[in-house]
Amino acid sequence: MRAPSPSDVAAGLDHWPQKRHRTLRAVLSTIADIGEFGLIARLIARSPQTDDVLVGPGDDAAIVSAGDGRVVATTDLLVEGRHFRRAWSGPRDVGHKGAAQNLADIAAMAARPTALLVGLAVPADLPTVWADEFAEGLRAECVRAGAAVIGGDVVRSETLTIAITALGDLAGGAPVLRNGARPGDVVAVNGRLGWSAAGFALLEAGSDEHAPCRLAHLRPSPPYRAGVQAAELGATAMLDVSDGLVQDLGHIAADSAVAIDLDGSLLRPAPELVAAVDRLTAIGARPCSARHYLLTGGEDHALAATFPPSVDLPPQWRVIGRVTPGTGVSVDGAAALDGGWDHFS
Amino acid sequence: MRAPSPSDVAAGLDHWPQKRHRTLRAVLSTIADIGEFGLIARLIARSPQTDDVLVGPGDDAAIVSAGDGRVVATTDLLVEGRHFRRAWSGPRDVGHKGAAQNLADIAAMAARPTALLVGLAVPADLPTVWADEFAEGLRAECVRAGAAVIGGDVVRSETLTIAITALGDLAGGAPVLRNGARPGDVVAVNGRLGWSAAGFALLEAGSDEHAPCRLAHLRPSPPYRAGVQAAELGATAMLDVSDGLVQDLGHIAADSAVAIDLDGSLLRPAPELVAAVDRLTAIGARPCSARHYLLTGGEDHALAATFPPSVDLPPQWRVIGRVTPGTGVSVDGAAALDGGWDHFS
Repeated sequence: MRAPSPSDVAAGLDHWPQKRHRTLRAVLSTIADIGEFGLIARLIARSPQTDDVLVGPGDDAAIVSAGDGRVVATTDLLVEGRHFRRAWSGPRDVGHKGAAQNLADIAAMAARPTALLVGLAVPADLPTVWADEFAEGLRAECVRAGAAVIGGDVVRSETLTIAITALGDLAGGAPVLRNGARPGDVVAVNGRLGWSAAGFALLEAGSDEHAPCRLAHLRPSPPYRAGVQAAELGATAMLDVSDGLVQDLGHIAADSAVAIDLDGSLLRPAPELVAAVDRLTAIGARPCSARHYLLTGGEDHALAATFPPSVDLPPQWRVIGRVTPGTGVSVDGAAALDGGWDHFS
Repeated sequence: MRAPSPSDVAAGLDHWPQKRHRTLRAVLSTIADIGEFGLIARLIARSPQTDDVLVGPGDDAAIVSAGDGRVVATTDLLVEGRHFRRAWSGPRDVGHKGAAQNLADIAAMAARPTALLVGLAVPADLPTVWADEFAEGLRAECVRAGAAVIGGDVVRSETLTIAITALGDLAGGAPVLRNGARPGDVVAVNGRLGWSAAGFALLEAGSDEHAPCRLAHLRPSPPYRAGVQAAELGATAMLDVSDGLVQDLGHIAADSAVAIDLDGSLLRPAPELVAAVDRLTAIGARPCSARHYLLTGGEDHALAATFPPSVDLPPQWRVIGRVTPGTGVSVDGAAALDGGWDHFS
């Protein structure tokens, strides 16, 4: 760690009168001021710890319990400008979102999230407070899911990039994969569909209303406990809806060698989604239909699963279709509109 | 996946005459051509699988065995321009290096590396062959360590960034942490010291000799099996030397509340390191001394450990000093020169 240079300080002070620099230095310090180890120390200080953590942050690696001799693991990257914009997303939002999208993948295997590792590539002029608030969002989302933050790495980069790995525990249960759906099964979802995509449209249109869909885009809220619940209910296949319902159900259909037919009368957009579309229409933003958002919108991280037809599902699991012989995903027997999300298309 | 646009193709063809575009399209395709899922599929096809992998890539998450109910986990980021330069490092080198620096952290806990997860943030104009060769380097280094590649994520970014998480298995043994060194213990190292830093200097000086130190910088070669071996020999503290010997031993000293005194007569630079310094001198590059590289050079990922004085160490573990009461790291009783590596200094 070295003393901050005038240019480092100035980088965080573009909008402040020169004479206030001295007193604001502490408040508006940047990553360049506190250094790599300083930032890691700050992130760790905000990390929730749990009984699963056997050795926490600070050594070469962490050690987490994996009670039944197996560990579930997944990783994701978030890049500024592609997965979030600092103009729209506050640092807490980014922390919540980064954690949520990984923890949801653990839940989608029917596992309980236990731990998160985070890599931060940050511009040197990133205000320290941004990193602090990001860590706070990450922490809060981990608390929601019951997971601990066990380790991390901080490096400098021109592009603010966040790498998150989540670990989970199956607690002796069988994982629910994508390849177990059988003709006759029902298809059900638990969580929001289309909210995030409509929220993105609201943000893009410059709407300043704090509508539920806008918040849903900034902070997805996956139903973490529904993953283990689905396994207990007998789910035959499951995933989290990260790229869009039709596209993601297509993975279950392909991996299970079945077709999925959605029932149009059961595809009821939530009132919040309908309200967002109405708002977009009112401000002349020419939105897609609520059903289009529902079928194609990604990043809500709802869980979608197939269950034997005999299963009595609780109300949070909303039946939307059925598994049939064949291939692909349809709505009322007709080809479902496509349009999921490929980061390079 | 969509058809490649002319601009995508052109991005990989800056140095080729226009008329050859058609035949070269297949060879010089870019990430934009094959898309996110296409690249993931290519990486997975090159991933080594092992008996530890219970569910491999392709579902929401992977599942790895964690035989004794614990999993060791660590994560690191590599950013182009900071941790590697494409002008110096080929894609295989970057794959080797990214895997090695994480797998070494697992070994430094006295665990056996089992699995790797990789996140790739890539410019759209990155040639597909770069990603293929990177995956090949990653695969080869995993094979060296006995680990599998179990999952990944690919996103687009202006800055080529690689996020790697490694997992490991303690197989019922106790981890060797940084806080167990006791006065009277000996300090020993296993692996290269200073080679990578001298290799970096050679590369920076434009030396075109394929000297061992140059290769050591591009592809570190951690002694993976020495971690478990150290635990079996009774190591009281251990870490991998990633930031420089003095700086990293300082972590053991601080966490164990002891001092470490290195014996200058035992700090013998390897002949390869001496040769690199001679070469640097010969070409007028004004190198640091071999001892300086040995004491401060990072990224070789040697293992450094403390052992009870009675332990009969095999020759790969070279004794270089002793643990004493006090604080800090010294050489022959005098303050060791500082100068480790902080990515923001």
